[in-house]
Amino acid sequence: MPDRNTREAQEHRLPVACQTTAGQQHSEALLVQLLLDFVLGLSRFSPLLKKRESLFSERFHSISTSAASASKSPPQCPTHLQGLRDSAPLIAQILLRARFPHPPSKSSSSFAVPLSLCGLMGSRDDDGQSTEVQGYAADINSIREAQARIAPYVHKTPVLTSTSIDTVAGKQLFFKCECFQKAGAFKIRGASNSIFALDDDQASKGVVTHSSGNHAAAAVALAAKLRGIPAYIVIPKNAPACKVENVKRYGGRVIWSEANMESRESIARRVQEETGAVLIHPFNDKYTISGQGTVSLELLEQVPEIDTIIVPISGGGLISGVALAAKAINPSIRILAAEPKGADDSAQSKAAGRIIKLATTDTIADGLRAFLGDLTWPVVRDLVDDIIVVDDNAIVEAMKMCYETLKVAVEPSGAIGLAAALSDEFKQSSAWHESSKIGIIVSGGNVDLRVLWDSLYK
Amino acid sequence: MPDRNTREAQEHRLPVACQTTAGQQHSEALLVQLLLDFVLGLSRFSPLLKKRESLFSERFHSISTSAASASKSPPQCPTHLQGLRDSAPLIAQILLRARFPHPPSKSSSSFAVPLSLCGLMGSRDDDGQSTEVQGYAADINSIREAQARIAPYVHKTPVLTSTSIDTVAGKQLFFKCECFQKAGAFKIRGASNSIFALDDDQASKGVVTHSSGNHAAAAVALAAKLRGIPAYIVIPKNAPACKVENVKRYGGRVIWSEANMESRESIARRVQEETGAVLIHPFNDKYTISGQGTVSLELLEQVPEIDTIIVPISGGGLISGVALAAKAINPSIRILAAEPKGADDSAQSKAAGRIIKLATTDTIADGLRAFLGDLTWPVVRDLVDDIIVVDDNAIVEAMKMCYETLKVAVEPSGAIGLAAALSDEFKQSSAWHESSKIGIIVSGGNVDLRVLWDSLYK
Repeated sequence: MPDRNTREAQEHRLPVACQTTAGQQHSEALLVQLLLDFVLGLSRFSPLLKKRESLFSERFHSISTSAASASKSPPQCPTHLQGLRDSAPLIAQILLRARFPHPPSKSSSSFAVPLSLCGLMGSRDDDGQSTEVQGYAADINSIREAQARIAPYVHKTPVLTSTSIDTVAGKQLFFKCECFQKAGAFKIRGASNSIFALDDDQASKGVVTHSSGNHAAAAVALAAKLRGIPAYIVIPKNAPACKVENVKRYGGRVIWSEANMESRESIARRVQEETGAVLIHPFNDKYTISGQGTVSLELLEQVPEIDTIIVPISGGGLISGVALAAKAINPSIRILAAEPKGADDSAQSKAAGRIIKLATTDTIADGLRAFLGDLTWPVVRDLVDDIIVVDDNAIVEAMKMCYETLKVAVEPSGAIGLAAALSDEFKQSSAWHESSKIGIIVSGGNVDLRVLWDSLYK
Repeated sequence: MPDRNTREAQEHRLPVACQTTAGQQHSEALLVQLLLDFVLGLSRFSPLLKKRESLFSERFHSISTSAASASKSPPQCPTHLQGLRDSAPLIAQILLRARFPHPPSKSSSSFAVPLSLCGLMGSRDDDGQSTEVQGYAADINSIREAQARIAPYVHKTPVLTSTSIDTVAGKQLFFKCECFQKAGAFKIRGASNSIFALDDDQASKGVVTHSSGNHAAAAVALAAKLRGIPAYIVIPKNAPACKVENVKRYGGRVIWSEANMESRESIARRVQEETGAVLIHPFNDKYTISGQGTVSLELLEQVPEIDTIIVPISGGGLISGVALAAKAINPSIRILAAEPKGADDSAQSKAAGRIIKLATTDTIADGLRAFLGDLTWPVVRDLVDDIIVVDDNAIVEAMKMCYETLKVAVEPSGAIGLAAALSDEFKQSSAWHESSKIGIIVSGGNVDLRVLWDSLYK
């Protein structure tokens, strides 16, 4: 028989602290939260009372210490408080970390989310690979854990709005600007979640990746640098110089391969065998998906009233994480994918009911040329409400609008969400009529200005 | 003999609620603030407890109502709470506005700021012009009033950081992105403060401006549109089409003039005489300076540990407001101006000890070609610690860095702060050695992409 608090939380689909532990710990966690709330409120809005933080800090410390010594096992941070590590003022982060030096145990986290979204959790085997999973590869728990894990290493990116663009779109648009993210794209979220989830022994041997994407390589190199471990980045000989430069700037070790996928994969395998490095997949991995899902947690914290989110789709890592998090928080949120016409494998896959891979792709959106994987496909199949396909002209027009009106330097893949929002296909759909406040994930901004110019005015 | 709270506030240079009123109102304001803090803390960080907002709201309302009915005059919002209208969650804004429908009275605001910064306040005479003032044209009070006045009409712009740029700069840089402001630049702050400070009678006749600047005209048109009054924008026949388009987009009425200043001024005077419209000056005005100063209030709320702010200088409205607010909050903050070599009248003025105007200007930074006015010069003379002069090549290099690394679409004037931060002149100064966390005001982002390209790769 659930107690009152548990029922209340289930009704409202909100986290419950430490359901599985004794009432004492529950009320302790609630006390901690109340104290934190109070300190946060005071420190943030009352300069006059800021000095009193130290007083709260002392009281808090004595409560924490006595509570911790009363317990035999080291205290676990309630999962729902982990989010504060990211969003709270410094004082609260310090308090939280002092109180809960260890990450949350799985048994202490419990969320009342729709059962259909509670995928079975995959786990890394000895090779550091995610094991195969049943259900979905990630869920709201793994995404919240990712948020807590990566908070020290990523930016909380701002949400921008433009009345001028809203007038054109006929809806309120909220641009989640991951182009301002570290290494210029959302990719660092998944990469740092994957890399910081490794245990010390696995991590010490380094990581390897052979992604063709613009960002993934730089993101893995940067996340590995942040953890202080080697990153072996397999790059085809015909890769653009700026990509190689980015990888080197973040301390990645460049390993050359031929331009074809076979060469890249076989060289990555050889690096794994020789060094024991862990392969980091750019999208088809539980930890990557969970990391990318933090974009949507953040967005819905920043603009809770959003009813629709438009997400670029390529391998499906970003949209899987975004959909799993958003639909767990609010099952009625509409998730729309934006895909370039010249690489519309996801739209074709949705129509066919199975993964379709294309022989060739042809689009200006160089970040959107990958195909769905076996872990991302089920999420796209089940939780993505529709896929809006736009052509390159529409992407270029949206890019111009981003530069000239939103004042944000985006790459083509980053502008495709706006292109979809402005498309006739969307405006003629029932989704358009039912949408009011639309989140647009601006996925990245890594673009060479000369290349940009050529694409805008060729 | 000041009471304890007053002394404590003076010691820490923080606002004191209602010093001039009775103790009853003082403690009531403190109670309000405590309640607000609590509600804010709860609503922001405790989803589980969010539902209880309504409870707080009810209790708050009954306290407010009884306190208001006990008082004979309508309740005045304490000035220090006004800031919350901008930064607080919606619930708190609603509570504040329900509780204090009237703007703060001058007698109820009192701040313990350095006496030297408490300039005598100018006031509009019957023509709507600011009267001449002794001391400085604005101060922390007028800037806080501006913040409260314009909060509903402007964006709170984000602060971006880049580890890559910090590595190049050798300092931590915090970019205050006014390019994301409404109408693409900080100018809307001053324009909306000027226009919303007009009484209904003055406002009904409309406003007129003849600024040559890219933004000022659009900002005045937009602010007038927001207030629902006519805006007459005098524009020289040779103005670029995009400027005219911007003005028309915001509903401004374009009045053509010849290209010279005499024609613009005489036509603006004629519009004033014929319509009774109030002239809005782009920088040399108390209300404009106060509005621009809100940039620095916001920045120091967002990053309180900043020790140096670099600000583009032209007519001096922005840097005057920024300096007056920042030095009132923290007298040890260093204010540095960034000025293009081809329009270095401010640097020459500082050296000469009087306003110097140039016969011609030649710089890519088209927003920085104006000269100081009699209201901005005293602030620049006394409170701007140094002026860093940079050439156009440095501005272009900084622009590229903004696009490629910061992912922000800036105009040349917006990039000059970064150019100054990276300049040899700055790096060889004592200011560089004494600076650690540097705020950079990215003033605007209104640029035609084709013009940008020409300037980057001509």
